Amino acid sequence: MPNFRFTLEYDGAGFAGWQAQAGGQRTVQDAFETAIERVTGQRLRVAASGRTDAGVHALGQVVSAQIETELPPAALQRALNHILPSDLAVSSAERAADDFHARYSAVGKLYCYRVWNDPTRSPLRAARVHWVPRELDIPAMSKAAEAFVGRHDFAALQAAGSEVESTVRTLARVEIEQEASGELVFWVEGDGFLRHMVRNLVGTLLEVGAGQRSIESMAELLASEDRRQAGPTAPARALTLVRVFY
Amino acid sequence: MPNFRFTLEYDGAGFAGWQAQAGGQRTVQDAFETAIERVTGQRLRVAASGRTDAGVHALGQVVSAQIETELPPAALQRALNHILPSDLAVSSAERAADDFHARYSAVGKLYCYRVWNDPTRSPLRAARVHWVPRELDIPAMSKAAEAFVGRHDFAALQAAGSEVESTVRTLARVEIEQEASGELVFWVEGDGFLRHMVRNLVGTLLEVGAGQRSIESMAELLASEDRRQAGPTAPARALTLVRVFY
Repeated sequence: MPNFRFTLEYDGAGFAGWQAQAGGQRTVQDAFETAIERVTGQRLRVAASGRTDAGVHALGQVVSAQIETELPPAALQRALNHILPSDLAVSSAERAADDFHARYSAVGKLYCYRVWNDPTRSPLRAARVHWVPRELDIPAMSKAAEAFVGRHDFAALQAAGSEVESTVRTLARVEIEQEASGELVFWVEGDGFLRHMVRNLVGTLLEVGAGQRSIESMAELLASEDRRQAGPTAPARALTLVRVFY
Repeated sequence: MPNFRFTLEYDGAGFAGWQAQAGGQRTVQDAFETAIERVTGQRLRVAASGRTDAGVHALGQVVSAQIETELPPAALQRALNHILPSDLAVSSAERAADDFHARYSAVGKLYCYRVWNDPTRSPLRAARVHWVPRELDIPAMSKAAEAFVGRHDFAALQAAGSEVESTVRTLARVEIEQEASGELVFWVEGDGFLRHMVRNLVGTLLEVGAGQRSIESMAELLASEDRRQAGPTAPARALTLVRVFY
């Protein structure tokens, strides 16, 4: 059966996250599988590179699925985009090798997190940024961010109650960029992410920026492997899964 | 009575335009005047640089008002922002000269209009762009845009049924920029604008880009002074009043 690779863009505001759920909440996976069923007549399970939480956006979520269809990828993409709701679209579709799997084949992911650091809130940005009115020490945050780059046990930045085999991950990049637009963008790239890891990392760095935590304490935080030592989980609406690497 | 100058930012999606209306539609003017009343106890009329239509956004709408208050501008701004709904904020507040009037003192305005020119729609941009899937000839549009720069009678680009004394306006700039983000931005700056003028201008240029109109026909269009000769009114959601000049 032909294997397909899709790239999805979605506005997370209207979804209870990626994963299909019992109980009828609106999810990206359900919306996408329903569209595939309407186009091909097949109800199947698709695999994503990973779950995104409720409210989190994606510019480049990757999904794989084996679909019995004669449609070439471009026609399948057009047909799906015609049916999909306005907050979800297939930005690319292609045939993939038989052994390609959106989750198991992924070797890395890039996220961005947007902060509006200004005394005044911004109505035109409100839906996609985390507003931080207090002044932030950006050089201090950038310096503190370096502690997270490399291979570490990120148990302290994992959502409480998560159960995974290993909490060791490698981050290739944690950088803070001041955009010309005035927004502060946290770029975080790594080989894998624990639940809430980016949002907890940003929440912790924002406390450094506000002078509530020292740059040096980051290493201790990681060593503690204790979620209670980290900062608050920053809001989902400012987080976007930008790209998945294979 | 002290005269104040406010700069407002708003997401136009939830407003039936700037102007207060009989019949209880939600408008920016009403929301702002209500907030002033709650802060100062005075129900007054404020003056904006001009009306924005339903769905049109503002990054820098300017408003003037004479308010009997002892509050310094920064305190007034904070109090208003505390009360205003999430889609409207005061981005700056200052004392103005007694003769400053947001509308009569204005000497120019800058608008931007965003187009997403891609075969695939973009869910993360959908609320703020006009999606044009067909291929556009950008150099042709830029060339055609030059015909609108300068002093002209813009009657052909005015909303049907409008009544104004003169339809002559001077445009200082009509430029099309391809942003790194992939969006196509139309920048239009002039000393004044007729109703729907920017949206009709963009709708006309998009027809040039699609090869449905010639570059040369722009001069004839202006000379016709006939709204029916221009292109369709491009959607409001992609238009933002960026700045007002004084």
